[in-house]
Amino acid sequence: MATNTTKTGQPFDRDVLDSLLRRTGFYMPSFEIYGGEKGLFDYGPPLTALQSNFVDLWRKHFVLKEKMLEVDTTIITPEPVFVTSGHVAKFADFMSKDPKTGEIFRTDHLIKQVLAARLKADQDARGKTIEVEKPDEPQKKKKIKDVKIEKLDDAVAQEYNETLAKLDNYDGHGFNQLINKFQIKGPTSGADLDPPKPFNLMFQTYIGPSADKPNGYLRPETAQGQFLNFQKLLEFNKQKMPFASASIGKSFRNEISPRQGLLRVREFLVAEIEHYVDPEAGKKHDRFQLLKDTKLTLLNRHTQLAGSEKTEVMTVGDAVENKVIDNETLGYFIVRIQDFLLKLGIDHSKLRFRQHMANEMAHYAADCWDAELYGSYGWIECVGCADRSAYDLTVHMNKTGAPLVVRENLPEPRKFQEYQIDLNKKKLGPKFRKDAKAVESAVESLSQDLREKLSLELKNSGKITVDIPSVGNGKTELDKDLISIEQREVTQHVREYTPNVIEPSFGIGRILYHLLEHSFWTRQSAESSDEPSARNVLSIPPLIAPIKVLIVPLSNHADFKPFLRQLTSTLDDLDVANSIDDSSASIGKRYSRNDELGTPFGVTVDFQTVKDKTITLRERDSTKQVRASQEDICHAIEALVRGRETWEQVSKRLPEFTSQEVD
Amino acid sequence: MATNTTKTGQPFDRDVLDSLLRRTGFYMPSFEIYGGEKGLFDYGPPLTALQSNFVDLWRKHFVLKEKMLEVDTTIITPEPVFVTSGHVAKFADFMSKDPKTGEIFRTDHLIKQVLAARLKADQDARGKTIEVEKPDEPQKKKKIKDVKIEKLDDAVAQEYNETLAKLDNYDGHGFNQLINKFQIKGPTSGADLDPPKPFNLMFQTYIGPSADKPNGYLRPETAQGQFLNFQKLLEFNKQKMPFASASIGKSFRNEISPRQGLLRVREFLVAEIEHYVDPEAGKKHDRFQLLKDTKLTLLNRHTQLAGSEKTEVMTVGDAVENKVIDNETLGYFIVRIQDFLLKLGIDHSKLRFRQHMANEMAHYAADCWDAELYGSYGWIECVGCADRSAYDLTVHMNKTGAPLVVRENLPEPRKFQEYQIDLNKKKLGPKFRKDAKAVESAVESLSQDLREKLSLELKNSGKITVDIPSVGNGKTELDKDLISIEQREVTQHVREYTPNVIEPSFGIGRILYHLLEHSFWTRQSAESSDEPSARNVLSIPPLIAPIKVLIVPLSNHADFKPFLRQLTSTLDDLDVANSIDDSSASIGKRYSRNDELGTPFGVTVDFQTVKDKTITLRERDSTKQVRASQEDICHAIEALVRGRETWEQVSKRLPEFTSQEVD
Repeated sequence: MATNTTKTGQPFDRDVLDSLLRRTGFYMPSFEIYGGEKGLFDYGPPLTALQSNFVDLWRKHFVLKEKMLEVDTTIITPEPVFVTSGHVAKFADFMSKDPKTGEIFRTDHLIKQVLAARLKADQDARGKTIEVEKPDEPQKKKKIKDVKIEKLDDAVAQEYNETLAKLDNYDGHGFNQLINKFQIKGPTSGADLDPPKPFNLMFQTYIGPSADKPNGYLRPETAQGQFLNFQKLLEFNKQKMPFASASIGKSFRNEISPRQGLLRVREFLVAEIEHYVDPEAGKKHDRFQLLKDTKLTLLNRHTQLAGSEKTEVMTVGDAVENKVIDNETLGYFIVRIQDFLLKLGIDHSKLRFRQHMANEMAHYAADCWDAELYGSYGWIECVGCADRSAYDLTVHMNKTGAPLVVRENLPEPRKFQEYQIDLNKKKLGPKFRKDAKAVESAVESLSQDLREKLSLELKNSGKITVDIPSVGNGKTELDKDLISIEQREVTQHVREYTPNVIEPSFGIGRILYHLLEHSFWTRQSAESSDEPSARNVLSIPPLIAPIKVLIVPLSNHADFKPFLRQLTSTLDDLDVANSIDDSSASIGKRYSRNDELGTPFGVTVDFQTVKDKTITLRERDSTKQVRASQEDICHAIEALVRGRETWEQVSKRLPEFTSQEVD
Repeated sequence: MATNTTKTGQPFDRDVLDSLLRRTGFYMPSFEIYGGEKGLFDYGPPLTALQSNFVDLWRKHFVLKEKMLEVDTTIITPEPVFVTSGHVAKFADFMSKDPKTGEIFRTDHLIKQVLAARLKADQDARGKTIEVEKPDEPQKKKKIKDVKIEKLDDAVAQEYNETLAKLDNYDGHGFNQLINKFQIKGPTSGADLDPPKPFNLMFQTYIGPSADKPNGYLRPETAQGQFLNFQKLLEFNKQKMPFASASIGKSFRNEISPRQGLLRVREFLVAEIEHYVDPEAGKKHDRFQLLKDTKLTLLNRHTQLAGSEKTEVMTVGDAVENKVIDNETLGYFIVRIQDFLLKLGIDHSKLRFRQHMANEMAHYAADCWDAELYGSYGWIECVGCADRSAYDLTVHMNKTGAPLVVRENLPEPRKFQEYQIDLNKKKLGPKFRKDAKAVESAVESLSQDLREKLSLELKNSGKITVDIPSVGNGKTELDKDLISIEQREVTQHVREYTPNVIEPSFGIGRILYHLLEHSFWTRQSAESSDEPSARNVLSIPPLIAPIKVLIVPLSNHADFKPFLRQLTSTLDDLDVANSIDDSSASIGKRYSRNDELGTPFGVTVDFQTVKDKTITLRERDSTKQVRASQEDICHAIEALVRGRETWEQVSKRLPEFTSQEVD
């Protein structure tokens, strides 16, 4: 079990980190001077740079290395797309309104909060203290009215615990029963709540000047844009399978009551991969052997069903062999995700992969493993790795008639008996008009078993009824003028199939926030110093640190200026992000300010520089320094930042320097 | 005057380029399988990679090199922000509805189209042929009903021409008068049009679960998000002026009737800089001297007013000295924009800077120069460089009371007489409630002249009336219980001012589209070849080409495989985007396919490679090849791609190779 301590073993204090992040401009509530808007945050310069370095690294690690086809599709999406994908019907949370105060709560969160608070009060009453989740900010101020320090019946406490464990299973009706049974009231007013209502989490909008009601949405994921282009992408890939598309872009969720700072926001950047694979080939992956010995920390579905959170460490090879992880492709991506997170600087001991239980999977998923990161909010899903099966491509193909399939030449032709359907298209078109394509596509996707049954029915009654959810009342009647079904011998030269999709999906903001938690620690400095005795440090790896080098002149002396100009220009030319701090603060203070910003290196220009053109190079985590010529130092920095050399290597090969930093 | 020819002097054919871009997956209409959605396009793999290389270069050229503070602010914006900025009232186009067909037209475009068509018909009737703008696709199919080949009276023709020249000056009422006067009807039906109505171009949305009407917008620019954070950014910059913020992100315009393919779209990526400068320091720039001899092609306001499009070439130093360009900072950024566009590969002869005329500037602009690029749609604005003066910071400060100002310590204190206002805040709060801040801020921003006048009025009548547009009916009455105005001697130690803003704003899609037009040409190949005789090439510079290297094995021979793996892995490690084409097409055909994708280099693995480990390197534009060891070739590629060496240099230093390409 990961514990909530910093990398140096100090107790982690979220308030200290949060105040650092706000004070140094990592992030700020959006529209703060207008009073702010819940669930929307702006990234200031350090976090914007960190985010763009993340995107750059992600592109190299996944898109370039794996030759993925990156696309940039639109955020604005017309309604029919999300009707087909199921988001209009199913991408919703339940909300409860307090009719007295007008407050709106996310129903599951409210029930969870109240029951957890009662259980906590029960424990307090029994004289036990248990660690409960740190409350989110909004709760700090609000008191939950009905909670007294009160012992519960053992049976009631058990029922609460059981309810909490399966809260994901309930629908609106179920939630309402819980609210009545457990007498859950408006937390500030104590009033009876309105019955829970579903609230669709997609932002609505109006496309074009003639829309008189919302006719589009802001996408909640980039995936649909990728699926709709599947045919074009397969063609771009010269019809070769398997392959992957990828997309990095803003997505949106109109959260009912956003909380947890940067973790649950209404607008967020995601990076998503859709890897298309032949389901009949067992979802093998041809580079799986290269990484099969990589160890993973796994929390599988069975363990969770047994009420435990105990993880197991095993190699991905074993996990796939023992069917803990379903197939090689899923396993391959889980390892690649882990490699990426570790390269980024995520603490390995605070990373686990948790399998979704059947009831918590999104409506499209067949299996799903989350990379969860541990921090002050507990274990949080940061990367999903879902097997979406053939769900999306199938529904879009059925709706539009576009052939979102792979056609593969067979090495040898296959002969077999098959029920074939012939439609009278001259009559079909006029009869079904805009639905004709959907009818055609639905009929053509009927299974052989069903065709056999229907061919009998057609012979007997002269007509058949087919389920087509998107047409009319869902039941479409076709008579023998329109359709015939006959068994024939077929010779197949080409195999046609709908690929399955493995989808690694990265919530970039959540990962960055955890990276900041994992990077944060406090340095105790020497007592003699005039600086604050505890200094905060963000040990962000050089590879993705927002600014790589701080250039610091010893003082404002005019002799230093040409060196500053030359250094910044040399580093610019090497594509090394740098900044100059020529303020009047002491060198120690200036370095300390930059330790907070995660800047891994500092160079100092002093009077020795004017004499012999040497400069010092300081490393953030150790505060050790070396001294060498400008050229040597700049090249050392480039090597450090590109990951070609470590600080240990550099500090061995260049002469140590000890005197100048006033610390 | 630029002409519409390719870089090799061939006549440019937009249809050929467009069919290439669609066929090779540069872009596709969004939601094409659902019938598409006007003004929305998806970028396929080549254009997505080109765009991300653009962003990378832009960040290096501007953000890193100029030490700008990049921020990432939200797209979703609550309504009050855009009320204050003026977008709710003024960011609109007029639309005309044909009541018979339900069609909606952008009024100015319709008038322009009809008058231009009549003028064209007039010229035809007079037996002259003039080049008119190539019609957009929707017009290809639609016929404009009322246009016959008919000679116009000279006076009428002149009136049409004059109207076209000043079409930007009209409002809804004016447009309506033109429509009646010139008898402009529904172009497909011939029916009378409904009177023009303003249509706000911002997409609306609903934030949160309790919104029962739209309460937010998708931003039409990133600028407001930057302005709202001005205080934090100034603090981040340690109170130093001047400085710039920057932002790259999606912005949105709900176009009435989008046309012109990738040029006029509803969702687009912009990169915007807000450079904050002290207006009293004459908007000097401390690096202006370094680039003052750079030549610019300028089309100023006066020339345009005189009805001419004649450009002048002059140095930016002369332009600023002669007040053609208002100030050094504007001049500095115009040069930096030009440098960037040329580095990108834009044709210098198809770039000009055009000054906005007073009537066409956005509501916030004090002066504006557009970088216009020439292509098959004529001269198109691709980068705006506007002086937004202190407009935005002032209106947001007045509305919210947040001090969006710079405070500067004066070298010596200043003493002077000043009218000071004292407000009785105990009474002000209860009286004005939520508007109290706005009243306070408006009163405090009153000029000394006005204060003098109001102090008399207050003395005489015991009350004054102040214009505060955002409060009540716009006229706020304050009596002497609430306010006093007195003249006092003041000693000032700190100067407080609202900075002016110079804003370079890049429409990324428009620039990329023009880059593709400017890069496109057709190669005539040898007659003996079995390949198509004309081959299309996109000469995109190596620095930003989507893929840098195509790796091509001579055939599918198993001996080549290890070399392919090693080459791709070496290039990946050097961060050089590469792809392998091991399809069965001839080498010539495979290279030809990649010339269309703008891939600048190709390497071939052949039987010689198996013997001596050498490979060939081919350059796209010359089709010349060299041959050397894998290591030498990979390092040459890295140098070429990073801009450290030119092909000319590489082809001189490595041995030429002539035989293998079947062309």
